[in-house]
Amino acid sequence: MGGTMRALRKTRPGPGAELAEQPIPSPGEGEVLVRVHAASLCGTDLHIFDWNEWAATRITRLPMTFGHEVAGTVESVGPEVHHIQPGAFVAAETHIACGHCSTCRTGRAHICENLRILGVDTDGAFAEYVVIPAANAWIVGEGIHPDTASIMEPFGNAVHATFGTEGGEDLATNPVAVIGCGPIGLFAVGITRAAGAWKVVAIEPNEYRRDLAAKMGADVLVDPRAQDPVAAVLEATNGSGAEVVLEMSGNARAIDQGTRMLARGGRMSLLGLPDGPVTLDLADQVIFKEARLHGITGREMFRTWQQTTTLLSTGRVDARPVITHRFPLERFEEAFEVTASGRSAKVIVFPGG
Amino acid sequence: MGGTMRALRKTRPGPGAELAEQPIPSPGEGEVLVRVHAASLCGTDLHIFDWNEWAATRITRLPMTFGHEVAGTVESVGPEVHHIQPGAFVAAETHIACGHCSTCRTGRAHICENLRILGVDTDGAFAEYVVIPAANAWIVGEGIHPDTASIMEPFGNAVHATFGTEGGEDLATNPVAVIGCGPIGLFAVGITRAAGAWKVVAIEPNEYRRDLAAKMGADVLVDPRAQDPVAAVLEATNGSGAEVVLEMSGNARAIDQGTRMLARGGRMSLLGLPDGPVTLDLADQVIFKEARLHGITGREMFRTWQQTTTLLSTGRVDARPVITHRFPLERFEEAFEVTASGRSAKVIVFPGG
Amino acid sequence: MGGTMRALRKTRPGPGAELAEQPIPSPGEGEVLVRVHAASLCGTDLHIFDWNEWAATRITRLPMTFGHEVAGTVESVGPEVHHIQPGAFVAAETHIACGHCSTCRTGRAHICENLRILGVDTDGAFAEYVVIPAANAWIVGEGIHPDTASIMEPFGNAVHATFGTEGGEDLATNPVAVIGCGPIGLFAVGITRAAGAWKVVAIEPNEYRRDLAAKMGADVLVDPRAQDPVAAVLEATNGSGAEVVLEMSGNARAIDQGTRMLARGGRMSLLGLPDGPVTLDLADQVIFKEARLHGITGREMFRTWQQTTTLLSTGRVDARPVITHRFPLERFEEAFEVTASGRSAKVIVFPGG
Amino acid sequence: MGGTMRALRKTRPGPGAELAEQPIPSPGEGEVLVRVHAASLCGTDLHIFDWNEWAATRITRLPMTFGHEVAGTVESVGPEVHHIQPGAFVAAETHIACGHCSTCRTGRAHICENLRILGVDTDGAFAEYVVIPAANAWIVGEGIHPDTASIMEPFGNAVHATFGTEGGEDLATNPVAVIGCGPIGLFAVGITRAAGAWKVVAIEPNEYRRDLAAKMGADVLVDPRAQDPVAAVLEATNGSGAEVVLEMSGNARAIDQGTRMLARGGRMSLLGLPDGPVTLDLADQVIFKEARLHGITGREMFRTWQQTTTLLSTGRVDARPVITHRFPLERFEEAFEVTASGRSAKVIVFPGG
Repeated sequence: MGGTMRALRKTRPGPGAELAEQPIPSPGEGEVLVRVHAASLCGTDLHIFDWNEWAATRITRLPMTFGHEVAGTVESVGPEVHHIQPGAFVAAETHIACGHCSTCRTGRAHICENLRILGVDTDGAFAEYVVIPAANAWIVGEGIHPDTASIMEPFGNAVHATFGTEGGEDLATNPVAVIGCGPIGLFAVGITRAAGAWKVVAIEPNEYRRDLAAKMGADVLVDPRAQDPVAAVLEATNGSGAEVVLEMSGNARAIDQGTRMLARGGRMSLLGLPDGPVTLDLADQVIFKEARLHGITGREMFRTWQQTTTLLSTGRVDARPVITHRFPLERFEEAFEVTASGRSAKVIVFPGG
Repeated sequence: MGGTMRALRKTRPGPGAELAEQPIPSPGEGEVLVRVHAASLCGTDLHIFDWNEWAATRITRLPMTFGHEVAGTVESVGPEVHHIQPGAFVAAETHIACGHCSTCRTGRAHICENLRILGVDTDGAFAEYVVIPAANAWIVGEGIHPDTASIMEPFGNAVHATFGTEGGEDLATNPVAVIGCGPIGLFAVGITRAAGAWKVVAIEPNEYRRDLAAKMGADVLVDPRAQDPVAAVLEATNGSGAEVVLEMSGNARAIDQGTRMLARGGRMSLLGLPDGPVTLDLADQVIFKEARLHGITGREMFRTWQQTTTLLSTGRVDARPVITHRFPLERFEEAFEVTASGRSAKVIVFPGG
Repeated sequence: MGGTMRALRKTRPGPGAELAEQPIPSPGEGEVLVRVHAASLCGTDLHIFDWNEWAATRITRLPMTFGHEVAGTVESVGPEVHHIQPGAFVAAETHIACGHCSTCRTGRAHICENLRILGVDTDGAFAEYVVIPAANAWIVGEGIHPDTASIMEPFGNAVHATFGTEGGEDLATNPVAVIGCGPIGLFAVGITRAAGAWKVVAIEPNEYRRDLAAKMGADVLVDPRAQDPVAAVLEATNGSGAEVVLEMSGNARAIDQGTRMLARGGRMSLLGLPDGPVTLDLADQVIFKEARLHGITGREMFRTWQQTTTLLSTGRVDARPVITHRFPLERFEEAFEVTASGRSAKVIVFPGG
Repeated sequence: MGGTMRALRKTRPGPGAELAEQPIPSPGEGEVLVRVHAASLCGTDLHIFDWNEWAATRITRLPMTFGHEVAGTVESVGPEVHHIQPGAFVAAETHIACGHCSTCRTGRAHICENLRILGVDTDGAFAEYVVIPAANAWIVGEGIHPDTASIMEPFGNAVHATFGTEGGEDLATNPVAVIGCGPIGLFAVGITRAAGAWKVVAIEPNEYRRDLAAKMGADVLVDPRAQDPVAAVLEATNGSGAEVVLEMSGNARAIDQGTRMLARGGRMSLLGLPDGPVTLDLADQVIFKEARLHGITGREMFRTWQQTTTLLSTGRVDARPVITHRFPLERFEEAFEVTASGRSAKVIVFPGG
């Protein structure tokens, strides 16, 4: 369509980013151009903004536009796109799968061997327009407010971690511990409750976020700096431990604690990414207990998106308390500041203002 | 302990029953004597009371005391009972398993090859005292009112049917249809909602029970005499059908309809017992759809009881609307009459008055 | 590429078919043109050839080329085909899924809501060339002889039925009954043995096919006209019944018998298509036994194909005994005759002679 | 029955053991007295014999008789034993479960909260007679030679690890790596093959045991001192890694390597007990790959015993190559020496000579 747009660009290695005029991109074969309505900030975006060690290693192509949690309206479609039309309001699955490797061919595209990430390996969504593969566009449908559709991606992370790789048959009637109440942990608290869990214990050092965990339905709140979270979970469960532990913090010590609060035969979903090796007492905490540790990444395409749509559109989970701040895109510095502050959960920017 | 007690006895083939003084039984090896606090009426009890064809064939030993949904206080224990003490308040698992057959030895005692049923194959619980195997006594614990603990057995039926043999990973976020809203169906509506199902459709011709289904949380109510239930479920699910169908009616036509309202890849739990052969369109409704039909009987020992305890004691399910009538045992005739009337759900009798 | 080819055409309603010169088709968008090396005959093809009631109802477009079990070399590719090149030797998945419905989007394309079948809804493979969607082309790889690659499709049916929808965790060490030893049943005998089943009972009235079942590894052979197959399975399993029953016959009486030979808690995969309603004793044979009846159709895309490839290429299953006849395409009448005769299993035709 | 017997006693902290005359024990309530036919040596027995740090901490009661892998004939039964008669030939499940805790009540007695171990917490089986709970006696039946029935316990460990907590649906047609080829690893190689796995890679530094792994059916043998086992598994699987890794070594480095050789979405059963903390790269090897690490201990009671019985009695697994040495009990010092030597696999002692 030609013309230019505003985009938040990372132009050089180092902290910060800058708004710049950029040509509006064209959708290629199998791609769609989306006019961005809302994009939310993820921890990954903060890493890129701050240019931490992970970002310096992972981002190899500068300048680039970042941001990947996004919802908007399809503006135009590229060649070979048959099943989505301009005008559709969509949210983006951010895992771009090859479609041809062994895991893709067996229905596990989210762990594709050739995975690329929107806004990391491609130009992202902190912009007026973004190009995504048509296969990654999920039609949002009625019942989910356009302002909040960009959170479907991280909400889906929480859905996938909560239900796990076995389907979540261990949630209903069982005690569950959620370690780390950033936005994904907060969503998980709500999803866990909606799935019929009993006694959801939320573990989070930040008081602001513990308060949000209570709003999302946590039965027990634990400040791990004030009390031993393992003891707290055992106490809340008459000594049996949590049947399910959802590890959202990526903190090595918390992961070890997670194994210790797990019931015999219990399941721990590991979603938080530790930034180094993690040391565990496998003999006593995993082997003798027959515990199961399951790595979790991304979202099942697209079973997770269907579950996400149902949970949000029916009100089974009310995600609104987690969305704490909204800014027009040009106030991106405030958006990153409040994200980093710890006095926020999900922060959304609106390129349209 | 000696002495006598009042017991509701079936003394001869034919309708009716009579209260009689009986010796208080003594617990044998591995058994406990329970002072009955409350016993609830099951469809099976009505069959025995009315002496229908099933009863005439199945009950081979008269006179006998019937009744099997029971809760009460352990009065004394027989030899070889080590883990339950007099004074414990217990509910009874009514499937008496041999413990030694192949299914028992592999953790599936509820489908024991030598199964006997309390109050059918042994003297039952419509009496001041009943003897049960110690292994069948479930300690009720706090949080469940003694008056209503006798319903844990049929509630457990509903729990087992709802979660199914695979654990219920298909409930959360999915549409579910419950066919037949007798007490077990009504419990299932509540359990299904507690497990996070979306759009629970209750199908029941009796208006009194449809009203109760609404109270238990059904999203859609269908009177199968007024509208085609298959069409109703398809309409409620945008044409996809119910991911899970819980068949509680035992009606041959309803079972066939259940397969027709099932989504592709869906699961149907069959709990209602048809009284004759059932004719199905396996090719179109099961094979091409890859539907799964699962027979359900009794309760998993004792996983189902743990789930039942949690659901009831935490209030995740409020079963009170289902308990519609209470009588002292001597008013048993009224109790059977109201059970048969269709203007009731669960009816409980209290031998202590 | 232009030019003409020989193709086996159904030109009018009624028995028979005729070889005709046809234009070589051109692959459209997302399609590939395959030069057919071998095509095998399926029961469906026999229905079409004979023009039975099913065919008269199902086939709405005449004239047409039929045949769908096929392997050959990609001759050319249409627009938008990126991941398969001319020269690749491929077998065809015959379920053409839409890719956009709810079941497709959740990894269950084989039960797509808009499914079309190669050689039924499109022109098929009894021809020198056939066009298939690129997504349906499975690269055969080394280790599977080109002459026999066309059987991967029905072999995959057997793989899917044997492992079932739960993954086949009930096969190893368990007794399994296979009802009906046509080619798919015969493959299932071999797969069942390869998966570690114990005591595979093959039930088949045709002596020629029972002999093949023995060659494929059946431990016990049962002629259902000479002995009661239910009694035979119970006897072979010390009265417990088969943990898994694979129903390949589609015969209503055999399906009923299948439920009766099933162990408590057992699983029955239903693949054979009955041509009318089926009457079952659900109460005694399914509900009280907690049996599971699972409809099975097609092949999981493409997990089943990976399993098929491994089983055949490693020799874990030797499928050669099942391939009983080979003909050049022009001898198609003999091919159909021997297929109908009962003194054959899989029959393959070679358009190249 | 009175009288005395020879028993191998640990009389004081420190290496060694001594044969002593002991009173023949009497079976208590619910117990049986077994005349020991054969008892095999386990790594645990070697720890006790050598009196390593683990033994010094774990064994609190001296003197005691050790040994727990045992088969023999029931000589007499204690009170309250109804379902096993003198004369029965039995093997012992060595996990003595309480039967009353939450895990026992939910069918997971092998991870009982109050677990005791035969020959560790009770007097063991290196003796002419041993007392075990009747519930722990598994009737061996025909088809398993009495001389080798004592190995059913460690063989069961291998069965449970191989099938895992999900049932082993991931074995057939998939590549499997077995790390550590002591007796349990060697059994696992055979079981894995019997369950239809493809390309079983056995990783073991000891040449003697690698040779046994080949005899048990390993397709690929890896000496981890001569080549990188991660590279070897990746090479054997075209870069994809093993779908299942069975960790039998307990070696911290090998466990880390196990995660690295695991395919995306793969499962690792952890059975070998590390003697200290284990450090893992959870982010790259577990989370991004969605790997599943499952702790495994003991045997499912008694599903694993049924599977074990079938595998051994039908010859689906021939365990004989693993039984490398037999001694009369009085030559126990040779038995421990050859067990420690590395030039042996399973060593069996016979109290009867």
